[in-house]
Amino acid sequence: MDVITIGESMVLFTPDSTGPMRYANQFSMKFGGAESNVAIGLTRLGHKSGWISKVGNDEFGKGMVSFINGEGVDVSQVSVDSEAPTGIYFKEPRRANDTRVYYYRKGSAASRLSKDDLNPDYFQHAKYLHITGITPALSETAREAVFEAIKLAKQHNVPIVFDPNLRTKLWSEEEARKTLLAIAREADIVLPGIAEGKFIFGESDPARLGELFLNQGASVVILKDGARGAYYFTAEQNGRVPGFPVEQVVDPVGAGDGFAAGFLSGLLDGLDLSKAVERANAVGALVTMVSGDVEGLPDKEEIEAFMNQTNEDVIR
Amino acid sequence: MDVITIGESMVLFTPDSTGPMRYANQFSMKFGGAESNVAIGLTRLGHKSGWISKVGNDEFGKGMVSFINGEGVDVSQVSVDSEAPTGIYFKEPRRANDTRVYYYRKGSAASRLSKDDLNPDYFQHAKYLHITGITPALSETAREAVFEAIKLAKQHNVPIVFDPNLRTKLWSEEEARKTLLAIAREADIVLPGIAEGKFIFGESDPARLGELFLNQGASVVILKDGARGAYYFTAEQNGRVPGFPVEQVVDPVGAGDGFAAGFLSGLLDGLDLSKAVERANAVGALVTMVSGDVEGLPDKEEIEAFMNQTNEDVIR
Amino acid sequence: MDVITIGESMVLFTPDSTGPMRYANQFSMKFGGAESNVAIGLTRLGHKSGWISKVGNDEFGKGMVSFINGEGVDVSQVSVDSEAPTGIYFKEPRRANDTRVYYYRKGSAASRLSKDDLNPDYFQHAKYLHITGITPALSETAREAVFEAIKLAKQHNVPIVFDPNLRTKLWSEEEARKTLLAIAREADIVLPGIAEGKFIFGESDPARLGELFLNQGASVVILKDGARGAYYFTAEQNGRVPGFPVEQVVDPVGAGDGFAAGFLSGLLDGLDLSKAVERANAVGALVTMVSGDVEGLPDKEEIEAFMNQTNEDVIR
Amino acid sequence: MDVITIGESMVLFTPDSTGPMRYANQFSMKFGGAESNVAIGLTRLGHKSGWISKVGNDEFGKGMVSFINGEGVDVSQVSVDSEAPTGIYFKEPRRANDTRVYYYRKGSAASRLSKDDLNPDYFQHAKYLHITGITPALSETAREAVFEAIKLAKQHNVPIVFDPNLRTKLWSEEEARKTLLAIAREADIVLPGIAEGKFIFGESDPARLGELFLNQGASVVILKDGARGAYYFTAEQNGRVPGFPVEQVVDPVGAGDGFAAGFLSGLLDGLDLSKAVERANAVGALVTMVSGDVEGLPDKEEIEAFMNQTNEDVIR
Amino acid sequence: MDVITIGESMVLFTPDSTGPMRYANQFSMKFGGAESNVAIGLTRLGHKSGWISKVGNDEFGKGMVSFINGEGVDVSQVSVDSEAPTGIYFKEPRRANDTRVYYYRKGSAASRLSKDDLNPDYFQHAKYLHITGITPALSETAREAVFEAIKLAKQHNVPIVFDPNLRTKLWSEEEARKTLLAIAREADIVLPGIAEGKFIFGESDPARLGELFLNQGASVVILKDGARGAYYFTAEQNGRVPGFPVEQVVDPVGAGDGFAAGFLSGLLDGLDLSKAVERANAVGALVTMVSGDVEGLPDKEEIEAFMNQTNEDVIR
Amino acid sequence: MDVITIGESMVLFTPDSTGPMRYANQFSMKFGGAESNVAIGLTRLGHKSGWISKVGNDEFGKGMVSFINGEGVDVSQVSVDSEAPTGIYFKEPRRANDTRVYYYRKGSAASRLSKDDLNPDYFQHAKYLHITGITPALSETAREAVFEAIKLAKQHNVPIVFDPNLRTKLWSEEEARKTLLAIAREADIVLPGIAEGKFIFGESDPARLGELFLNQGASVVILKDGARGAYYFTAEQNGRVPGFPVEQVVDPVGAGDGFAAGFLSGLLDGLDLSKAVERANAVGALVTMVSGDVEGLPDKEEIEAFMNQTNEDVIR
Repeated sequence: MDVITIGESMVLFTPDSTGPMRYANQFSMKFGGAESNVAIGLTRLGHKSGWISKVGNDEFGKGMVSFINGEGVDVSQVSVDSEAPTGIYFKEPRRANDTRVYYYRKGSAASRLSKDDLNPDYFQHAKYLHITGITPALSETAREAVFEAIKLAKQHNVPIVFDPNLRTKLWSEEEARKTLLAIAREADIVLPGIAEGKFIFGESDPARLGELFLNQGASVVILKDGARGAYYFTAEQNGRVPGFPVEQVVDPVGAGDGFAAGFLSGLLDGLDLSKAVERANAVGALVTMVSGDVEGLPDKEEIEAFMNQTNEDVIR
Repeated sequence: MDVITIGESMVLFTPDSTGPMRYANQFSMKFGGAESNVAIGLTRLGHKSGWISKVGNDEFGKGMVSFINGEGVDVSQVSVDSEAPTGIYFKEPRRANDTRVYYYRKGSAASRLSKDDLNPDYFQHAKYLHITGITPALSETAREAVFEAIKLAKQHNVPIVFDPNLRTKLWSEEEARKTLLAIAREADIVLPGIAEGKFIFGESDPARLGELFLNQGASVVILKDGARGAYYFTAEQNGRVPGFPVEQVVDPVGAGDGFAAGFLSGLLDGLDLSKAVERANAVGALVTMVSGDVEGLPDKEEIEAFMNQTNEDVIR
Repeated sequence: MDVITIGESMVLFTPDSTGPMRYANQFSMKFGGAESNVAIGLTRLGHKSGWISKVGNDEFGKGMVSFINGEGVDVSQVSVDSEAPTGIYFKEPRRANDTRVYYYRKGSAASRLSKDDLNPDYFQHAKYLHITGITPALSETAREAVFEAIKLAKQHNVPIVFDPNLRTKLWSEEEARKTLLAIAREADIVLPGIAEGKFIFGESDPARLGELFLNQGASVVILKDGARGAYYFTAEQNGRVPGFPVEQVVDPVGAGDGFAAGFLSGLLDGLDLSKAVERANAVGALVTMVSGDVEGLPDKEEIEAFMNQTNEDVIR
Repeated sequence: MDVITIGESMVLFTPDSTGPMRYANQFSMKFGGAESNVAIGLTRLGHKSGWISKVGNDEFGKGMVSFINGEGVDVSQVSVDSEAPTGIYFKEPRRANDTRVYYYRKGSAASRLSKDDLNPDYFQHAKYLHITGITPALSETAREAVFEAIKLAKQHNVPIVFDPNLRTKLWSEEEARKTLLAIAREADIVLPGIAEGKFIFGESDPARLGELFLNQGASVVILKDGARGAYYFTAEQNGRVPGFPVEQVVDPVGAGDGFAAGFLSGLLDGLDLSKAVERANAVGALVTMVSGDVEGLPDKEEIEAFMNQTNEDVIR
Repeated sequence: MDVITIGESMVLFTPDSTGPMRYANQFSMKFGGAESNVAIGLTRLGHKSGWISKVGNDEFGKGMVSFINGEGVDVSQVSVDSEAPTGIYFKEPRRANDTRVYYYRKGSAASRLSKDDLNPDYFQHAKYLHITGITPALSETAREAVFEAIKLAKQHNVPIVFDPNLRTKLWSEEEARKTLLAIAREADIVLPGIAEGKFIFGESDPARLGELFLNQGASVVILKDGARGAYYFTAEQNGRVPGFPVEQVVDPVGAGDGFAAGFLSGLLDGLDLSKAVERANAVGALVTMVSGDVEGLPDKEEIEAFMNQTNEDVIR
Repeated sequence: MDVITIGESMVLFTPDSTGPMRYANQFSMKFGGAESNVAIGLTRLGHKSGWISKVGNDEFGKGMVSFINGEGVDVSQVSVDSEAPTGIYFKEPRRANDTRVYYYRKGSAASRLSKDDLNPDYFQHAKYLHITGITPALSETAREAVFEAIKLAKQHNVPIVFDPNLRTKLWSEEEARKTLLAIAREADIVLPGIAEGKFIFGESDPARLGELFLNQGASVVILKDGARGAYYFTAEQNGRVPGFPVEQVVDPVGAGDGFAAGFLSGLLDGLDLSKAVERANAVGALVTMVSGDVEGLPDKEEIEAFMNQTNEDVIR
């Protein structure tokens, strides 16, 4: 397994029309979750990924596991919880530049993930463990599972990649700050956005943030700056890689997950740090051009075409 | 106010296609809840009804209150809870004769209804208090609210109409049996189905069930027998009123609420018991012929046309 | 031209869901009108038909003429009226056996049809003139146009086929009765339904109705009895042809027009009266099995397959 | 009641696809009308509004009154006319910058509004009477009703707010010009667009137009300049308030009604004239960002967030 | 692997409306193919199945493999052909009892299956090889691949299950008859329908057909009689198992594949022949109650509930 | 007939959502083909056009011929081939600036067009013969038909208009280059795009390309430069006509066909070359603003309004 990850995925309902959701009549069903988005992004680019999770014994859980399995992600570590439902959420495209999210995930099957759901053997041959800041926000047991996963990874010398993914709707700011920082301290690679850096350290300056994250113990820090691109920092080098121009943002959700998948794919393919960040930027950009969290994730051929494009309108 | 009622309404999502919901792509949004269904059924038939409830401070809550208000129901007693979401549920028309329901209502705004949400003045001029067995299943505080409502009704000599509406997904059988029986003992009119009667008393014989419910203290017992019709029992009289033939059941959900609305409408209009039950049967039948909980509820003109119909195919 | 006809067609909007239309969200657009339905039914069966009408200078008019022209009907006699809109109507499938229709046709372009819109040459080579009782109900000028068309037909010895198509929403009962009777007196072939016969003569008995219509001057009377079939009467013979069984009526509207097209097609193909009525029954039955007024109209191959079917479920 | 208004609302059908409507297959149903749009805009912002109107005794009328009532507008002054249908219209988004509207409102129920439909008591406690130039264009009786409403308002010292809303499809230019001017002379506040000012006075210069309208007797003149903002004029002061930038205009219809609602809301909340105009601009801008006439109307919280926005892309 | 199968799957487009497809506007996309339907039916019931096939290097091929993989079928033996497209077909629900199919599969990727696509090792541990009469009709090379698969199966003592699946659109009757018979002679278990038996042997009598098929060499013959059930024949025993009543056939396509999956599942679970046929009947019945080829395939729990059902209307 | 043309039209399926088509659920059906697009463009602008083609004996063929006939194009020269299906294709709007097309046209009915399908009389009164480079790519017989059509045109002194319409998916580059050049040599008017010019001559400079095409024998060369406009060249004059600004390209497919229709319409109306090119640019621009190949084609009134527009947002 190239990358293993742990977290909740949910059924995503999006109204067919823009505007306040109370006026919507039709919703379409998709699936999404930061960690499975990353796992799918990786298989799309030719890597092997595995997703540790839990779903309810219901239609939504069955559909979601089929979908993620169909995308080539190993779902052998997904268990079924008969006592709790699969989480769902709604994405309201209220108007340009105002997208809102409504969760129905409290007490969901995945929030009942615990240490006991981890299979130590599964960590043995992984090349990376991907962790987000969402899973520890789900519940006390989920938080324990995250730290247990970190422990298992360390036992097998699996480097830990941490994407804070701050979700203030899920926990108190204080608890969030404390936990995200605690995980950042265990991580080998951290992938915060600037706003997340500011949330944790009260600091917005990229260079200063890079230093602060490195000081926690990470050997690589990638600081995301939205459509503008990203910064990278290690003990030896740092730099900034500009983002790719996007003609029209169709759906901004999932861009960060695409970024993480693109970046890890770059590392797995042996790219330089700056080249890996460039690929990360490109994947992130492509994700925003298509509705849905994972639908826009490119395969190898597509990412290369996009990165080399002359931006001519193409009809093939 | 002719009838006041108390309970949770939810946003209802139904897939556009029949079959296991995991394969659905499009869902349509409607609103439903046993108590507001009854309230709407009553306004449709020309009566005044009020609905005591709680919704989340979210799009779904806003949409639901607008919808129910728009139907003419008094929503002055609906409060907004900023801490909890509006409940939702999914109705899966799996195949003919197999409809399934999935709730996301645990911890919902309406489950946080409590005694404090009751305005004693509101009970003063009501002609009936309508109670279902769903509300006490929502939470401890909701159960207390139901018994407080009963107390307030009794203070003002408002007769209590009780529809058990057994929901085994919401509580343990034991707790359900105990509570439903406790409410039945307070009620003036009870509207159980035969299966509910069996659940409570372990008895299926209509005549025997009628007697058992009367013995708890109710003065009127209406025992529903699905499409076949209903039995009625009082100290003085009893009888059976056959149901109306339904060419095609489009959506069986909401028939019982339509029955309750039709029955109460009959009482409010001064009909004989058997005539009120006949109207109840007719409303219940009409509800099943249209998709949605309330969409098929008839107005005065429509219920009369249906009850007098010659069953000729009509194109007007 | 085998058959020419004159009348209004309208844009038809049908909600995607069954039930009271106030709850509908999506409507689909089709086109329909008794006379153009008959004209299309005839081209489908291999005959040449022409439709005299008027549409507004608007998108609906353009779309409708394209559609009817595309079906092979001659539209050279359709004029465009810049002063009035194309008529529209809504079909509400309220529930099984209760379909309602709402017109927005008052003052429509077609209601402004007048004698001046008739091209005398067009009547010269027609084999039949088809007239319905709808056109004279549209307006005073439209009524005059109908009687002028009758006059022109008579001048060229074109037999007149009259389908009463009673629409009580469009005119007073008295005016309707008087006018329908006046046209029936001019017609060579009349195609009333039993209810229409009763409306005109206050008589329901098929044999008696046949006689009454023959007495007005028609040489052929076909009395339609819905799904049960039809009766035929001439001076020499009469009989009854049973209808074809229809597994499921999807949309009853348009059946009568299909009947007329099937019957005229039978005459044009030189069938016996009873065989022509049998084909009429078959076309009428097929129309009800598909949504829309004309979508279910069969071509030659299909009508034969249907009339000879063994009723086995076929997957081709 | 803070604001009462009088006018027609219609059912609005919009095709799901852009382009000439003849090619559309699916239409969605909404409700709209300048006056009820304003009334809804006001309730959304926390004020009390009432709408005087008439609908047909049909599904569309029932659905429309439920919708507007559900939005919190007082509909006690809406009567039902069994003789005429509820008006409908089609909005064709033909292509960017070319939206067309097709009315089916001639002879509609609301066009039959008359003086007799006005309840003098209803004017007694209103803070403003809102009048548009559409209602007097509907029919002779509707025009009389408008002038009667003005008379009643003046009797109770209710200031009159007039939005010309020129609709050249509904009446002759001459009649329109004469009547709009006559109403402008009765109004305390007038809200014309520059093009409307030019239509009435043949003058395009904002300053000159402000003067001309003030000269008719109004104490406040707000001159709308589309997305660019608006000018205000009183005897004492005048100025210009720039509009808010809109990233993408989704549906321009209803912007003027939002402007009126925002402006009246500002007055009711005791804002300065320039601040009220600023709010008006903001509401107008928000309406254009969502499909439908009223769906984009903001509530208090939303208007404030929009006016203070940093324009960062927000995912909540 | 419990069962391996070989054949073409296609993208299936179905119009959203019933009637001649020329009038359809919207089509929905699903996936289907007799062999993958059987493979999915088996995984749904808890068995391991593998599907040997070929798809184009296109969106349809990618989507189809993801879907079938997501259903738990082993797709390791599916190759991608860059020279030819994935096949597609249209299913036209023309009216009740008249469903038509239109193929675009000539020269498809799967029609280019050949002996070289078979991995001999894959046959080693299979418990059954499932073969249909469709694959040999695709092309000369596909026919060779079928006979090679039979050879490989025999080498490893894997019993061969043959479902004739006659498709007269794909080849000449003569060629079909000859080849189906040739395969039947190699098969251990044959699953013909009565019409197929008649096609091959010119004989309709069930008992006689059973004998004829047994005489070719099969040890088990299951003769399908549509909704009426099926006959079974071996050297030692024979009998008839009646079908399950189906309230409403929603989509008849796929019933035979469900039958095969149910039957093989029964054998794998060690059921008696008659019990395996009963399960086959049940799966076939369930498939027809849901739109799509595989959507109605039951899991273990569902098939048991259905076979034991009391046929009460259930709302869970 | 003003213009006759010869070629294949296909049924076009477009997913309702943007992104990789494997995730699409709903597709809408339209019709398109370069030559019939031009024919429709011409009738829309008031000219008479005829389309020579072949369709399958299937629903798609019937629907397509009805549609094109309904648009006013003469379809008397369209034959039905019972041996081959009507071609179809899919248009995948993958993301902004990346539209892909998937054909299912190999062996289609239209690819079986041959010399024998040409009716010499049909060429007698045509004013122009329109030929594209697609038809000769369909098959050997289709290529022969094209050259036969050219021969027939020359016999009757009908000028030949050639639009290369290079489709590299349909034939080898070498074959394409050779054939396109051969046709260009026969043409009186050629309408290449700059990229096509480069493909044929290996040259991108407009002036040089104009010269090269003129040298082949054409008397008029129009060189299309996308949204930027077009160049024109004759022996006597040359120039460049800038394109019209397009606010938002909704669907780029069909723009070239609109250009050809606009240009030919200009010639037929006796416009100057530069004015005809200006109209061509305008039609091409309008086509891209609406989804579908022909839906955006303007009529006379619309093209004039567009060419004279002040670009103000219009709501009519």
